[in-house]
Amino acid sequence: MLPESLLQQIAFIKEIDKLKYIQRKTRLLNSDRHENDAEHSWHLAMMAIVLAEHANEPIDILKVVKMVLIHDIVEIDAGDTFIYDTQKSHSNADEERLAANRIFGLLPEEQARELIAIWEEFEAGETSEAKFARTMDRLEPLLQNTSNNGGTWNEFGVDYSKVYAKKSIMKEGSATIWNYAEKLINESVEKGILKK
Amino acid sequence: MLPESLLQQIAFIKEIDKLKYIQRKTRLLNSDRHENDAEHSWHLAMMAIVLAEHANEPIDILKVVKMVLIHDIVEIDAGDTFIYDTQKSHSNADEERLAANRIFGLLPEEQARELIAIWEEFEAGETSEAKFARTMDRLEPLLQNTSNNGGTWNEFGVDYSKVYAKKSIMKEGSATIWNYAEKLINESVEKGILKK
Repeated sequence: MLPESLLQQIAFIKEIDKLKYIQRKTRLLNSDRHENDAEHSWHLAMMAIVLAEHANEPIDILKVVKMVLIHDIVEIDAGDTFIYDTQKSHSNADEERLAANRIFGLLPEEQARELIAIWEEFEAGETSEAKFARTMDRLEPLLQNTSNNGGTWNEFGVDYSKVYAKKSIMKEGSATIWNYAEKLINESVEKGILKK
Repeated sequence: MLPESLLQQIAFIKEIDKLKYIQRKTRLLNSDRHENDAEHSWHLAMMAIVLAEHANEPIDILKVVKMVLIHDIVEIDAGDTFIYDTQKSHSNADEERLAANRIFGLLPEEQARELIAIWEEFEAGETSEAKFARTMDRLEPLLQNTSNNGGTWNEFGVDYSKVYAKKSIMKEGSATIWNYAEKLINESVEKGILKK
């Protein structure tokens, strides 16, 4: 009686509940409580919706929102990769692809294919939507670390040049938001919460 | 140099971080850990995206996603209202309206007006988008309670007739999803995790 597609979708919806347990290195604003991937994904979606006007190029905002909502789902299997961890970021792309196939693969075939394609588009970072989504993904931890006395920069000894290198891709998504981010980074050096 | 709109949007983005601290009564699937509003909102957005095909009427999915992402933001000021708490649900509509004006009011005027209108549309529950969004909001705790041996139903002594009354509005958003929900409710009675 119930359509098979609905049962597959419910299985997917139950499975992704696990994203709420994946802890990130960063902490909530003015807080020592770690953020989890589900909260992070919600926040990026809200950011994309309110900041869309600052994108360099016209963007399909629904696609950007889908991208940021799903971008970390692979971490249910593959775990969180810290952006300044050079070892892991080179070694777990295969693991993430397997995770995408397993988890999105719970959905009806056409839907699985669509979401895997959106996730891959985000990972490749080449379209205007992916560039803007990645700008959101870089901005949130910047707001967190500047509110937390340097946050993960201090905790893991990350200096200005590393932060600048990782963050400067933000300009590909939004020159305006990058101007703001660059100002925050420079102010962090002046305040002594980011080492030069 | 930086546009005023961007600074207003950043203030809003920082403020809504507080949604991550608002605890719901329900708990994660197969878990005793309470869910917070940010995780809940993320999950509803994912549900809306994958279940859209089952809506009774054509829906603007971007609007539904915006609705569920923002629907609980007022709880930053007004607190979580438990669905089976008849006292509070009658008394805090004014408080929620004040909260909407304060929090969305941090945004540039036009954007504030748009998001307040979407929140009010959700609250009124009359459009096809609002009906579908509310179906998502009713479905998630049903999945949680059935996975948690009755969850909040047992914890707060809520019986079949109350659950049925609250959940049956799901059929306004999706007859198909309501069929599934009704089956879950009836099975819960059979299993003895929901009292008749």
